[in-house]
Amino acid sequence: MRALVWDGEALRLEERRLAAVDGRARVRVLLAGICSTDLQLLRGYMGFKGVPGHELVGVVEAGPQHLVGRRVVAEINFACGACPSCGVGLGRHCPTRDVMGILRADGAFAEHVLVPPGNLHLVPDEVSDEEAVFAEPLAAAFEVLEQVHVKPGASAVVLGDGKLGLLVALVLSSVGARVTCVGRHAHKLEHLRRAGVQVALAGAHAPGDRVDLVVEATGSREGLERAMALVRPRGTLVLKSTVADAHHLSLAPLVIDEVTVVGSRCGPFAPALAALAARRVSVAPLVEGVYPLAEGPAAVEHAARSGALKVLLRP
Amino acid sequence: MRALVWDGEALRLEERRLAAVDGRARVRVLLAGICSTDLQLLRGYMGFKGVPGHELVGVVEAGPQHLVGRRVVAEINFACGACPSCGVGLGRHCPTRDVMGILRADGAFAEHVLVPPGNLHLVPDEVSDEEAVFAEPLAAAFEVLEQVHVKPGASAVVLGDGKLGLLVALVLSSVGARVTCVGRHAHKLEHLRRAGVQVALAGAHAPGDRVDLVVEATGSREGLERAMALVRPRGTLVLKSTVADAHHLSLAPLVIDEVTVVGSRCGPFAPALAALAARRVSVAPLVEGVYPLAEGPAAVEHAARSGALKVLLRP
Repeated sequence: MRALVWDGEALRLEERRLAAVDGRARVRVLLAGICSTDLQLLRGYMGFKGVPGHELVGVVEAGPQHLVGRRVVAEINFACGACPSCGVGLGRHCPTRDVMGILRADGAFAEHVLVPPGNLHLVPDEVSDEEAVFAEPLAAAFEVLEQVHVKPGASAVVLGDGKLGLLVALVLSSVGARVTCVGRHAHKLEHLRRAGVQVALAGAHAPGDRVDLVVEATGSREGLERAMALVRPRGTLVLKSTVADAHHLSLAPLVIDEVTVVGSRCGPFAPALAALAARRVSVAPLVEGVYPLAEGPAAVEHAARSGALKVLLRP
Repeated sequence: MRALVWDGEALRLEERRLAAVDGRARVRVLLAGICSTDLQLLRGYMGFKGVPGHELVGVVEAGPQHLVGRRVVAEINFACGACPSCGVGLGRHCPTRDVMGILRADGAFAEHVLVPPGNLHLVPDEVSDEEAVFAEPLAAAFEVLEQVHVKPGASAVVLGDGKLGLLVALVLSSVGARVTCVGRHAHKLEHLRRAGVQVALAGAHAPGDRVDLVVEATGSREGLERAMALVRPRGTLVLKSTVADAHHLSLAPLVIDEVTVVGSRCGPFAPALAALAARRVSVAPLVEGVYPLAEGPAAVEHAARSGALKVLLRP
């Protein structure tokens, strides 16, 4: 099959043999999304080598009978299924997990990808391929609702208009929170404004009252400090970025104001797919470009542009 | 009345007029406790000047009729009662609050102290003065149970055998958590061991499996990093120290492991008093010395010794 392969120095289109792995289903990739984590991988994050790509929609070609021929999306954490974490349903935190396109397991920037059948979710017919490919990042946005009780009418600020920030703002708004997204790109914020979310440019954001919930999705040092200043006493601050910057800051304000800080990573696919099917969250307008696999490097270059929205690969 | 007064340079016994404050009850102090926060105040923390002391048991001498002559303990945050925080029951976070013996309001290292009647709690007859004087720090320990769902059998580590660390370990143990307290002073840990809590000396603590709950009560930079290494994925890390050290650390592990960090400060008095009355928590063995007011400086010096347990003043 053809695949985009990262060898630690360059991303190249190669002919690659898909070696079957026991118990994994073979999925033909219809669309794959390029995510900020991919851009970081291509700068050396995780020391990954192989086929990147962890956002996909595809069709099962080989695997359990009830899945063959069906359209699916895939959870990215390939858990062992046997350790204590897996035993309590925390497979996404399995310490020996492979992570599709990020850690050990090849990913979806290819014609085919191998995925444990338990990681596959059927895509409802009402959801297009261009929407379904958002299942993984949208699930990460829904993770906030798994971890934090967001009441209707709760006041929230999302810091960052990266792709994940936009999705988090849409998800919080979809459950009735009063959300303001603070970002740097007017054209990205415009998507939110059309969806009824309040927006503000970072420089122009005049914080009023402190809010119930702040989601830090900039991944910057300054973002965390701003987040701490924006959250109310007893409020919640969600960290939604794995960027490994070391911060030099005092956590005393968190103690004095009894703030709860919640680290948040991958999320549940079922509510994400249900929201797409019910049109509670609109993601299709976030697609900015679709490239064939052969133009992978150009697609990555596009995705890395400041202010770029979602760029997809169509193998 | 006689009071210990901190003028920014020295703590001196003085004759001080108790100027009545509208609506505040006058409490004759029976015992006052010296807390680590007091020791910090006497090193310049908060820029406080006046009478320190925020842990007390006393008898109401003037105030609402139903309280006069009764034995009481006092919550330390004097809230305005009118702002949005107070309106939602978060008087402990009122932005214009005075704090007894810490911020603007004189405290309990004196023969008398003035307290809003709403801050007073009657002491059950079964609770001795020497126990009741622990109500404030014990309430701060109970705050963890207000903020975190600690299940029976949950695994927990308390880092730090300061007075607050000991009380947190006792409280967590009292609800059935499997607690290990890691500290630096064998004689302090011995109190916990007798109460059925597992203990370990800091250097000798060999972390086994990561635990459900870590309470950081050392206030040190290293404590926070150790806490992050000890908590399990999806576990909870409670910050129980307002020490304002700036930390230089990456919060990425909190995101990857989806840890919840909870800042925790003052707590509810009712469960603390109930636990003392029901003998679910034993605090009397933690008293190491009782000094008359005239020996205040010596009492403070004693409380500041490495490894000191609770030192009390008896005005």
